[in-house]
Amino acid sequence: MTTDWVERLLGGDELAASKLISLVENKSPQVPEIMRQIHPHTGSAAILGFTGPPGVGKSSLVDQFIYIACAKNLRVGVLAIDASSPYTGGALLGDRIRFGDYSGNDGVYIRSMGTRGHLGGLAQASRGAIRILDALGCDLVLVETVGVGQIELDIVKEVDTVVVVTMPGSGDYVQTMKAGIMEIADVFAVNKSDLPGADLAYSELVRFLHMAHKDSAWLPQVVSTCATKGEGLKELWTAAEAHREFLLQEDRISRRRKEQVKGEIEDLVLCRLKDDFWNIGWHGQRIQEVIDKVYARELDLYSARDEIVAQIVEEIKKI
Amino acid sequence: MTTDWVERLLGGDELAASKLISLVENKSPQVPEIMRQIHPHTGSAAILGFTGPPGVGKSSLVDQFIYIACAKNLRVGVLAIDASSPYTGGALLGDRIRFGDYSGNDGVYIRSMGTRGHLGGLAQASRGAIRILDALGCDLVLVETVGVGQIELDIVKEVDTVVVVTMPGSGDYVQTMKAGIMEIADVFAVNKSDLPGADLAYSELVRFLHMAHKDSAWLPQVVSTCATKGEGLKELWTAAEAHREFLLQEDRISRRRKEQVKGEIEDLVLCRLKDDFWNIGWHGQRIQEVIDKVYARELDLYSARDEIVAQIVEEIKKI
Repeated sequence: MTTDWVERLLGGDELAASKLISLVENKSPQVPEIMRQIHPHTGSAAILGFTGPPGVGKSSLVDQFIYIACAKNLRVGVLAIDASSPYTGGALLGDRIRFGDYSGNDGVYIRSMGTRGHLGGLAQASRGAIRILDALGCDLVLVETVGVGQIELDIVKEVDTVVVVTMPGSGDYVQTMKAGIMEIADVFAVNKSDLPGADLAYSELVRFLHMAHKDSAWLPQVVSTCATKGEGLKELWTAAEAHREFLLQEDRISRRRKEQVKGEIEDLVLCRLKDDFWNIGWHGQRIQEVIDKVYARELDLYSARDEIVAQIVEEIKKI
Repeated sequence: MTTDWVERLLGGDELAASKLISLVENKSPQVPEIMRQIHPHTGSAAILGFTGPPGVGKSSLVDQFIYIACAKNLRVGVLAIDASSPYTGGALLGDRIRFGDYSGNDGVYIRSMGTRGHLGGLAQASRGAIRILDALGCDLVLVETVGVGQIELDIVKEVDTVVVVTMPGSGDYVQTMKAGIMEIADVFAVNKSDLPGADLAYSELVRFLHMAHKDSAWLPQVVSTCATKGEGLKELWTAAEAHREFLLQEDRISRRRKEQVKGEIEDLVLCRLKDDFWNIGWHGQRIQEVIDKVYARELDLYSARDEIVAQIVEEIKKI
């Protein structure tokens, strides 16, 4: 059954992509098998991420990139990642309806992903979804995040090229830097270039990058854009392409992707360790007794930790 | 030596608090011993968190709360948590200089905390810092976050009462909800009440909360404030106090704090498992071989995981 869907996916069937991404999103027990089967068929798509504070126009830029990619006859997959709370997330995903414009267009597959009540799983699910779109045969996968929290940063680190979108003035510019995304940007778009202060924001950013990257092999390019008017889009595309060229030189892309593989393996191993080992006997009454002791100040947290770890080791030895 | 600092801390010495918080921030190997020694002396401070999107005026509200607390002769500790990137973090922490107003005031201790290059450690470090301020003898610990990312949410969950600060219009209001902080709010401050749309924002939020919390024991209170004009601050303080009263009823505070203890123990155990087990032989060449195989599509991620976990178990058995 899973194998059928995978076969359909590898044949280019978008319905199969939807089905498989849903399984990944729902943490289905079939996920390892799915990933095993599609793994040999991944690795050829270019993965491009868009991140930045809310309201700077990421969605509009992604829209424009879809148009450009379509005009170039590229097959495009789009993942819009929303780490919103499940509490209000559903309703607020409504703004994704804009993507309806493309539905029915053969070359474009679009998917929104939310937390489904488990923030920690979103990074893993989105990695899986990227691989699925890669295996579907997409030439280009665009990953757009809604916010700039840690989850989004983790996700966007999984792409080949990161476009950080910012805008002039309003403090948003500085907030972008605050959120820790400066060092993961390969390309900057200073969007809403029709707003006052756009030139200043552009030149400040360029100056800053020249200082910060004076010893780097890649100097992040900065492009002024106005997505709603379609201005600067070609230049932004060219900048993203230039970064891809850079990655392909000296096989830098393999280093980047191997770093990602390393992080992913570590995550998977830790998750497994957590599920397997932590749960050995450490649930219900037993953990509650430790918590009660800590709360009552009879036991401190670090002694509690050492006690539990020692017992986990003993239990593993009995396996 | 550590014991000396702890003794000075318990005697109310702020210099000792600074020294110990620095040790916690730098992940000193002395941290477990410090925490062991102060643990029996913690638990009496009221811990109040302020979170919300950048620019809504959290700092100004915290400032006002410091004044109110001082007027009540309460000893106050303030932690300003900035999960900014270390890359730009240092310079941008400059806005914390405002806190200079209080320095020299005996009843107020203020500390900024940043990531120091390790985001994952910030939540643990801030928990440690809260405990240190508690042990210092603070009646009230105010924890202010700069952003609303996952790290900040994790941190703010460690407090007794969460004040979510928002402001009218500008999309920030909706962004607040998007960031997943609605469900952790015990009190809302709709700040900048002098801006257009303040009444609407207030009434929308109240209506939303009435629907969302119709079966909850605690209905989050909403207060209109204008921190810069000092308006609504008394009401906000009263709302925070009302939540504290609620927590003290039916010993709800013990349930809340035990949940926090549970999360903290889990984190500590997982960190230890990670450091101890993951590192058993899984470094350098050995892990690199696995990564290379995955990258070359000879091995998939989940099979890599299973192989590594099986070997870790074998290695633990040999201990």
